[in-house]
Amino acid sequence: MPARRVFLDASGRSPVTPRTADAFLAGLAEGWADPARLTAESRRARAVLDGATEAIAVALGASPEHVHFTSGAHVAFDRAVAAVAAARRGRDRIVASAIERRAVLDAAEQVAPGAVTRVPVDRAGHVDSEHFAREVSDPAVSLALVQHGNHEIGTLQRLDGVADAAAAAQVPLIVDASATVGHVDAPERWDALVADPADWGAPLGLGVVAMRPRTRWLTAWPGDGFSPGGVSIPLVLAAAVALQERLESLEADRSRLAALTATLRARLAQLEGVTVVGDEIERLPHLVTAAFMYLDGEPIVSALDREGFAVGSGSACGSDTFEPSQVLAAMGALTHGNLRLGLTPGVDDSDVERFLATLPRVMEDVRRSMTA
Amino acid sequence: MPARRVFLDASGRSPVTPRTADAFLAGLAEGWADPARLTAESRRARAVLDGATEAIAVALGASPEHVHFTSGAHVAFDRAVAAVAAARRGRDRIVASAIERRAVLDAAEQVAPGAVTRVPVDRAGHVDSEHFAREVSDPAVSLALVQHGNHEIGTLQRLDGVADAAAAAQVPLIVDASATVGHVDAPERWDALVADPADWGAPLGLGVVAMRPRTRWLTAWPGDGFSPGGVSIPLVLAAAVALQERLESLEADRSRLAALTATLRARLAQLEGVTVVGDEIERLPHLVTAAFMYLDGEPIVSALDREGFAVGSGSACGSDTFEPSQVLAAMGALTHGNLRLGLTPGVDDSDVERFLATLPRVMEDVRRSMTA
Repeated sequence: MPARRVFLDASGRSPVTPRTADAFLAGLAEGWADPARLTAESRRARAVLDGATEAIAVALGASPEHVHFTSGAHVAFDRAVAAVAAARRGRDRIVASAIERRAVLDAAEQVAPGAVTRVPVDRAGHVDSEHFAREVSDPAVSLALVQHGNHEIGTLQRLDGVADAAAAAQVPLIVDASATVGHVDAPERWDALVADPADWGAPLGLGVVAMRPRTRWLTAWPGDGFSPGGVSIPLVLAAAVALQERLESLEADRSRLAALTATLRARLAQLEGVTVVGDEIERLPHLVTAAFMYLDGEPIVSALDREGFAVGSGSACGSDTFEPSQVLAAMGALTHGNLRLGLTPGVDDSDVERFLATLPRVMEDVRRSMTA
Repeated sequence: MPARRVFLDASGRSPVTPRTADAFLAGLAEGWADPARLTAESRRARAVLDGATEAIAVALGASPEHVHFTSGAHVAFDRAVAAVAAARRGRDRIVASAIERRAVLDAAEQVAPGAVTRVPVDRAGHVDSEHFAREVSDPAVSLALVQHGNHEIGTLQRLDGVADAAAAAQVPLIVDASATVGHVDAPERWDALVADPADWGAPLGLGVVAMRPRTRWLTAWPGDGFSPGGVSIPLVLAAAVALQERLESLEADRSRLAALTATLRARLAQLEGVTVVGDEIERLPHLVTAAFMYLDGEPIVSALDREGFAVGSGSACGSDTFEPSQVLAAMGALTHGNLRLGLTPGVDDSDVERFLATLPRVMEDVRRSMTA
């Protein structure tokens, strides 16, 4: 019997559970109509949308009337940055951490061309909060962008220091929680928040922007500008149910996965030429990234795939916009290739043991083929 | 036993069939992974995406490698207009028909602020092709926008005259087929085409842009720029299957629905103060719009809803961006309110008869309450 396939590439997308798929179907049945029209079908759609929006809002610590949906996390970054910046006309600088997502930095660059300051991080990936405070105190700063947790290295930011500095300077803080919601408690310190349902197990095609009631924002787009043409109600319902499912077992999953990733970190670090990156304690429970001193990531990903393991490598391909090399470079990590593991709640001890037993052989094969 | 509810508001969104819902589920099961990564899950997702893209391309008369997906029709208009205009730098005018969708005109205005010329239409809604030819021959024209069929009044444009004029002037023609694909044969004369899967029975959340191989376009966005963050493969598969389902019975549905709407047109025209709009022959088979001389649309929609009929009215509400009043105004129709009927393939003779028996009473009630 072949060993079961092990999916260790949960980063932005995961298999969708039956309960979440059922929620999508229920959303199709009850929420296909345009919620803004005057018919019974539309009122039913609106009721589904309102209920699902409220569930997501509560989970994020936001008010339902200040939660907006977009067609994905990338568009959510764009809209959140543009909307907050539009209410701060006359200020032309943006301050961001050096390890924000490429899509976040692109959104910032769009609004403040050539004027995005990237605040350095330490070797564990934490923003230098004194440096951040200095930058953000410039009256020309329109907004600040700091992630809750890094999609690549797993480090959780210490948002209190950052948020205090932003508040003191009266600069709105946009927090990218696209890698953290559904894995750890939602962040509390933000003026605008971006979350990514696909990362917590929902089907692709939805992004979330939450604003505080006090946060000022404007949009140049018609309507509310976040979902031109309307939001997919089945996707909102599926996202709400997927999040509910994650939150119901959050405590248990978090400690179990953190123990598995602690094992992975310790054992990977023993391999020659391998450095495990990110904060050892303040980190996402399900992510591990290892940097290779001498090996490329791609051939290792492909060889592991043949052995039954799906893993990621930030430098894999063009559409993988995570660009970990940039993240790792910002942290001062010396790296050639890298390996990114993202554990779903379904992964167990034996999967991890089998992976750890396979990896050294795969690395040796790749090393041999590179020097051949 | 209460009479069955009749849905006559198919315009942009419709109930999703079980076969299409199943396709979405199959797409979730096989196509949840990122198609650009290097694992077996990703290769499977890519195969699903490629197959579904090819099916849609064939139905549109396009090459699969020139079909792009967006998160909806609105975004498809934006991206198609921006991409074609970007390859025509230095030309700052856009020529459009006077009855293009609001979202199309918004996209044009974004690219050519204050320089969108709207070519008039006749009382049936046909573009004045001589006027169009004159406008499009100006070397300052970047691109032209003409719809295949109108979402509101149902008139099908005579694209040959328009396309000949655009070709003679070497101006790329973008055709909005968002109201026609799945209802009549796809248009053949275009340099770029926009289609709307939700209008042919797919779940909301996908738009299609097809380019000709010879059409020049550029994008300022990272990647291919149509779907930042990636396309939903389940939605592409559902859209392909929904379109297949429509095309399988296109001939039969088309003649049956055209006969029903012919009956509706004739009988509505007999009511006092009611004008049926749009071309009597060259029109979409499933749409009918009636303009009221003395009545508002909203109370009639609400009263019909209580009687078990879901119908539309362009002036209904803010998010209904169809703005028929603008379309009707452009055609010279005198109108106060209006009623828009969109028939799904499931509507039958008895539904239509029941509707026609109910409407005069509803109109009388509304008239009485307005003068009360």
